[in-house]
Amino acid sequence: MEPRTAFQSKTIMTDLVLPSETNPINNLFGGELLARMDRAASIAARRHSRRIVVTASVNHVAFNRSIPLGSVVTIEAKVSRAFTSSMEVFLDVWIEDRESGECIKANEAIYTFVAVDETGRPVKVPELIAETKLEKERYDAALRRKQLSLVVAGKMKPGDATELKALFFD
Amino acid sequence: MEPRTAFQSKTIMTDLVLPSETNPINNLFGGELLARMDRAASIAARRHSRRIVVTASVNHVAFNRSIPLGSVVTIEAKVSRAFTSSMEVFLDVWIEDRESGECIKANEAIYTFVAVDETGRPVKVPELIAETKLEKERYDAALRRKQLSLVVAGKMKPGDATELKALFFD
Amino acid sequence: MEPRTAFQSKTIMTDLVLPSETNPINNLFGGELLARMDRAASIAARRHSRRIVVTASVNHVAFNRSIPLGSVVTIEAKVSRAFTSSMEVFLDVWIEDRESGECIKANEAIYTFVAVDETGRPVKVPELIAETKLEKERYDAALRRKQLSLVVAGKMKPGDATELKALFFD
Amino acid sequence: MEPRTAFQSKTIMTDLVLPSETNPINNLFGGELLARMDRAASIAARRHSRRIVVTASVNHVAFNRSIPLGSVVTIEAKVSRAFTSSMEVFLDVWIEDRESGECIKANEAIYTFVAVDETGRPVKVPELIAETKLEKERYDAALRRKQLSLVVAGKMKPGDATELKALFFD
Amino acid sequence: MEPRTAFQSKTIMTDLVLPSETNPINNLFGGELLARMDRAASIAARRHSRRIVVTASVNHVAFNRSIPLGSVVTIEAKVSRAFTSSMEVFLDVWIEDRESGECIKANEAIYTFVAVDETGRPVKVPELIAETKLEKERYDAALRRKQLSLVVAGKMKPGDATELKALFFD
Amino acid sequence: MEPRTAFQSKTIMTDLVLPSETNPINNLFGGELLARMDRAASIAARRHSRRIVVTASVNHVAFNRSIPLGSVVTIEAKVSRAFTSSMEVFLDVWIEDRESGECIKANEAIYTFVAVDETGRPVKVPELIAETKLEKERYDAALRRKQLSLVVAGKMKPGDATELKALFFD
Repeated sequence: MEPRTAFQSKTIMTDLVLPSETNPINNLFGGELLARMDRAASIAARRHSRRIVVTASVNHVAFNRSIPLGSVVTIEAKVSRAFTSSMEVFLDVWIEDRESGECIKANEAIYTFVAVDETGRPVKVPELIAETKLEKERYDAALRRKQLSLVVAGKMKPGDATELKALFFD
Repeated sequence: MEPRTAFQSKTIMTDLVLPSETNPINNLFGGELLARMDRAASIAARRHSRRIVVTASVNHVAFNRSIPLGSVVTIEAKVSRAFTSSMEVFLDVWIEDRESGECIKANEAIYTFVAVDETGRPVKVPELIAETKLEKERYDAALRRKQLSLVVAGKMKPGDATELKALFFD
Repeated sequence: MEPRTAFQSKTIMTDLVLPSETNPINNLFGGELLARMDRAASIAARRHSRRIVVTASVNHVAFNRSIPLGSVVTIEAKVSRAFTSSMEVFLDVWIEDRESGECIKANEAIYTFVAVDETGRPVKVPELIAETKLEKERYDAALRRKQLSLVVAGKMKPGDATELKALFFD
Repeated sequence: MEPRTAFQSKTIMTDLVLPSETNPINNLFGGELLARMDRAASIAARRHSRRIVVTASVNHVAFNRSIPLGSVVTIEAKVSRAFTSSMEVFLDVWIEDRESGECIKANEAIYTFVAVDETGRPVKVPELIAETKLEKERYDAALRRKQLSLVVAGKMKPGDATELKALFFD
Repeated sequence: MEPRTAFQSKTIMTDLVLPSETNPINNLFGGELLARMDRAASIAARRHSRRIVVTASVNHVAFNRSIPLGSVVTIEAKVSRAFTSSMEVFLDVWIEDRESGECIKANEAIYTFVAVDETGRPVKVPELIAETKLEKERYDAALRRKQLSLVVAGKMKPGDATELKALFFD
Repeated sequence: MEPRTAFQSKTIMTDLVLPSETNPINNLFGGELLARMDRAASIAARRHSRRIVVTASVNHVAFNRSIPLGSVVTIEAKVSRAFTSSMEVFLDVWIEDRESGECIKANEAIYTFVAVDETGRPVKVPELIAETKLEKERYDAALRRKQLSLVVAGKMKPGDATELKALFFD
């Protein structure tokens, strides 16, 4: 199984914020953004694995900046690291000002997908090659996040989470 | 501002899984579940704060069990801890077997909301009183999660995250 | 087939009123509320019968109180009486004031469902046990409503509608 | 205020049954049909009154015939009688066989709407002129239905419901 | 295969413009109108052919008049000409003023559909009989439009487009 | 007003085909694709003009290739030419095979938008600079299409449509 680059899974979803997708103070509903990011991330994971993929988990997503009604929102999703049958997908969300054309980073999010066969059983996926500096940083951090989620889920002893401990002792 | 119990914010959303909400292997889309949980959690946060609330973040959500087309899905949301103007909401997701009537836990999730005024500025919220054993466990864990998210975001030094360190040294 | 209590079928659906669901004077569309009530009532009927259920009829529904945009709406559905293969489901609709937290009754409705097998043929359902005073009142009234609908449909002679005549001669 | 004929309010809504609108046995959801009928009926009431209209009640609706996925459904709505500020709207629902082109009656329903001004206060509506035999039958029955709903709601003594009593004593 | 009249395929879809279907200046989105017209036109083509039909092309559609939120929109679709397995459908879109009841033409559009069997292969359709003066004009123009689209697609030499040349030399 | 390149307006919308968006033979509905293309094209026109834009017309759209359920669909929209206050937007639609990763052209379409101010009045837009060979071909063809639509609408004499005549006499 040949490895693939992060670039090969890059997925761009640009769309509008419609009136039916806003909360009482006229910004995009958190839930709607979560759903759009899930669709974009699943396409990136599918492009990497060329398999049916299902959402396995959503890591910490921070809604730093509200996204007003009428905005043009661009979601960019790329696989950041592949494990045996799972893939971590990193998403960047941008909004752009209509008058200046300027783009502002609104959110980041991390989703994990598992590749499955038609019966829903996990299958192997290719390795991920990180090329740019940012891709490499995210690739390294992905292992720490995986260990963290195993520790939090009680499936790994903190003492074995070598990557994670570094975070607290460096 | 009088404190409120977790029970007072309890929100139940029972609904069907319709054909338009399923992925290629006929299970509920991760994105659709994320959106429903966001609506249920926002109602719990609103009931606690009696304010307009906006999604601030979504913590690690694990999709342990797939939810097939036609399922009856029950989302139960309760505020697990209140900070100055933010509230952590804990969600339990259940599906029930039509023939046996048995209920199975399908997912857990944690969302954070901020209470705001009409102009979008954060406002204070009442304290949360945990009553049951489970509510108390979640209340305690909420502080560790808050520290973890501050450390990960680079807003708190790992050495100051006293609650979190205990996780690694106990 | 063991009888089940009304409580065992109790279904709660709490959700928001979103902008896309409102009429020109910014209240929840009658049609959207009818659709939500149909979903909640079908779950109650399914919980009672543990079968596939299909809507058979909607009895008089009065929209006494309009439900404004942004409201939190709670629909509570319970089977009120079971006949051979049909179930009458009683729905209470509540809205709550965000600032006071007070709940106000907005509507009542009655739907009837039929339990069917996979080919759509009616199947038997368990009897319904009414426990509370309100459940008993609704259980008794259900027979009058059934007779009324048979008379109106020309399937029962008014003279045979013993329960119904009482309404006019007592 | 000049009276208007039933024909002048006639509203036709022909549309498809899409996959997202079906229940587990692949027929149109009761709730979706209720929502479509509400939109069609509200247009008929608006055409009669030339005012904003809101749903006041839904009378007994029987789902006699299931409507399969892919059907072409035609809803025809006409005002059947006007009272001071309310209008009864009668709906006939037809499905047509694709191969034979034959039309079959699938359902009937009766909705009541109230005409309101911009602040939501009821306003007067024109009288309704029934022209055809069927329109006249429905016009006459509308008064019986109105009395029945008043009796059921406890707002009219059964003894005063002259039209209704005839139903039981003729 | 017996020919059918344009009248036999006539399809009327009257519906409201809801808040979720409007653009930033509160008029019906172009895309939503295109989707509704596609559904109405597909029903007209299905009524003519009594077959499964799929959209083949959309001809020039001019959005001459914006359609405000809350409008009642009536789409009328009729087959304007049938070719071997394709049908041209002509659509007229009307909006009506609530207070005066007056109807105004908002748009015209032309869609082409192909009749197919269950496997998606094109099948023959009956001829179309134009009866009224307008139906005849549209029937004649349909051939010019077909030639034009063949020329534009490079599938017909301009010199062979006899009907079309007349447009430029008369 | 500084001219902008076609590249500056380039808009990519990659998304899935969900079950609710398919026709009876399990392909994407023509109407749903028309609506998505309208949203993507409106963003391209907005990026070029930095103004509110409304759909003015849809030119001939051919649905050459059906798009099956579960496909990943990529719509790429770029302004192909700007006139006084209107912009022609050219769209290319691609689907990709999950297993091979190969991309296939499924459709092309041309939409026209008008830039307006907050009151809906047309405003001037910048000129468009075509850079690549394909952009230049589309830029040139845009003028012929504009003349064609003016001739068809009866707003230009065929004899004055110099660009168009060339099509028939070259």
